[in-house]
Amino acid sequence: MKLTILFGGASFEHEISIVSAITLKEKLSGFDVSFIFCDESHLFYLIEPSKMKATTFSKSEYKKMPQLSISNGGFIQKSMFSSSIHQGVVLNLIHGADGEDGTVASLLDFFSIKYIGPRVDASVFSYDKRYTKYLCNAKDIKSVEYEVLTSNEHANINTPYPIIIKPARLGSSIGVSIVRDESELDYALDSAFEFDSNVLVEPFIEGVKEYNLAGCMVDGTMIFSIVEEPQKNEFLDFEKKYMDFSRSEQVLKADISDELESKLKANFEKIYRGMFEGSLIRCDFFVVDGEVLLNEINPIPGSMANYLFEDFKTTIESLAQSLPSQNKAKVSYEYIHSISSAKGK
Amino acid sequence: MKLTILFGGASFEHEISIVSAITLKEKLSGFDVSFIFCDESHLFYLIEPSKMKATTFSKSEYKKMPQLSISNGGFIQKSMFSSSIHQGVVLNLIHGADGEDGTVASLLDFFSIKYIGPRVDASVFSYDKRYTKYLCNAKDIKSVEYEVLTSNEHANINTPYPIIIKPARLGSSIGVSIVRDESELDYALDSAFEFDSNVLVEPFIEGVKEYNLAGCMVDGTMIFSIVEEPQKNEFLDFEKKYMDFSRSEQVLKADISDELESKLKANFEKIYRGMFEGSLIRCDFFVVDGEVLLNEINPIPGSMANYLFEDFKTTIESLAQSLPSQNKAKVSYEYIHSISSAKGK
Repeated sequence: MKLTILFGGASFEHEISIVSAITLKEKLSGFDVSFIFCDESHLFYLIEPSKMKATTFSKSEYKKMPQLSISNGGFIQKSMFSSSIHQGVVLNLIHGADGEDGTVASLLDFFSIKYIGPRVDASVFSYDKRYTKYLCNAKDIKSVEYEVLTSNEHANINTPYPIIIKPARLGSSIGVSIVRDESELDYALDSAFEFDSNVLVEPFIEGVKEYNLAGCMVDGTMIFSIVEEPQKNEFLDFEKKYMDFSRSEQVLKADISDELESKLKANFEKIYRGMFEGSLIRCDFFVVDGEVLLNEINPIPGSMANYLFEDFKTTIESLAQSLPSQNKAKVSYEYIHSISSAKGK
Repeated sequence: MKLTILFGGASFEHEISIVSAITLKEKLSGFDVSFIFCDESHLFYLIEPSKMKATTFSKSEYKKMPQLSISNGGFIQKSMFSSSIHQGVVLNLIHGADGEDGTVASLLDFFSIKYIGPRVDASVFSYDKRYTKYLCNAKDIKSVEYEVLTSNEHANINTPYPIIIKPARLGSSIGVSIVRDESELDYALDSAFEFDSNVLVEPFIEGVKEYNLAGCMVDGTMIFSIVEEPQKNEFLDFEKKYMDFSRSEQVLKADISDELESKLKANFEKIYRGMFEGSLIRCDFFVVDGEVLLNEINPIPGSMANYLFEDFKTTIESLAQSLPSQNKAKVSYEYIHSISSAKGK
């Protein structure tokens, strides 16, 4: 199978996207995979598979590789006398800004390039945690209670301690803190507001059970990964998450009842259907008193959550063959024609 | 002032975008305005201002004009031996798909082109009427009750007649019907489902008072248009709306109390702030028993609702100078560096 992995992006998660891409190179061996890197200036480069290692990017060696431009139907590579087009299905592996905020989705849609990844609506509803809450309310999916702060004012917080403070729009735990009492609040708010002008406050639920489930829809049917109970030292900080993005060994299934597994899958499907078609997402759930709460949607999970799938390659292959088709409006000029003829022109 | 009007798009509202652009050419005389047309194949053309008339497009004469490609910082025009870049602020005047669904916003953001128009989040929340309802719920803004249908099944409708049937994602009254009893339902549902797989059902409120208000934010302060009470024969069908998009004469202020005007403005600001910065939008409100309900957000109103502003040119000029800045994440390679050095490489 032919697949183009698009990674990088002007995002705080730029580096973890590189790690994800390197991990997928290994996990998708046997596929005909190309790598397109989007650098922080939004220039595209075709990376030779043998050069897919961290130093190619950290030492700017990618700049010596062929530059590409995006165009209708694919990425164009120009040489002195000719140009060729890189076509085929793209896997959007740009984590965070650009990749998950709707930008890359729109870009690929506009240029009629088929892709695995969240469409623009799905991106907007999962990238900003406030909007994920709107979605949960509308679809009657339970999630953790929250408040939104738009400025660094203690007085506005009504949630009792301990609380968790998160920038509205970043993934990978960047800017996230647990706050046990008011003495820790200033620093936590400063860290969060450094990354976003909107900050979420949620109760921190001590010892909560956490479960991750990934999946996608193929021909109208959900394909689910195993359910994982992630190991955690309270929660993963950025450095630990960073290492997490290079995971490639399949994990053990969480030891949960069939009933809970069904509940998790039902919640996942409720979120996915009508919104996330075309993407492989990971949902992180909390279970409190037997009740399932959505914690977070990862529309482009680290290394595509390969470690949760028994047959990751087949999952990607079937998803690539079941991508939503774009229904571009057919343009007509009937009103202009009828007005012109009424005017006798 | 220099301004580039981007219009056309692969949308059912392609023609009304052309009409809007022609109207703005007249309303913005004195400005240094360029026109970039996006055709249904998503190719860009630079249109000579003197050729800004309907037949240029309906007779495909635009295809003889210079083709442009979008690139970092602007639109590139290539000739045999050189290339030049069209820079400066873009006014996104693509109505409907492409323009209002977040695609063009993302495209311009990605290529660092400043623009007047809704950003990607604002587009998603206003283009799909379901998501506008989510937003209203979250921001505690009253709107008309609704139900969502995903298939043509009468049995699913609980709203009593008369009802109004709307495709979730189209503007300009396309596919919209008023249904007075079940005999009219089939046809109305067929028309709506022709355009979208999600259809909204709302009560049709006989003789409801309707008011339109446009505005934008400049340096943190709202600039409002006058409030208009639109004339209507029940509601505008597509052909009437089409003519409506070429409006250029200033309309009369609605005869309403100061109290109601303040209420409309307060609701407008609640919708706008934190979401629509950078755009000039028109909100259409209903007033029922003294209570203001949001009917619809037009994030790119026909001919930019010029006819509602006492000084349209100054409004556009000050908005163009107060556009949100993009905060692109600075990329660093500190984790890769630290890991590489830990490994001794």
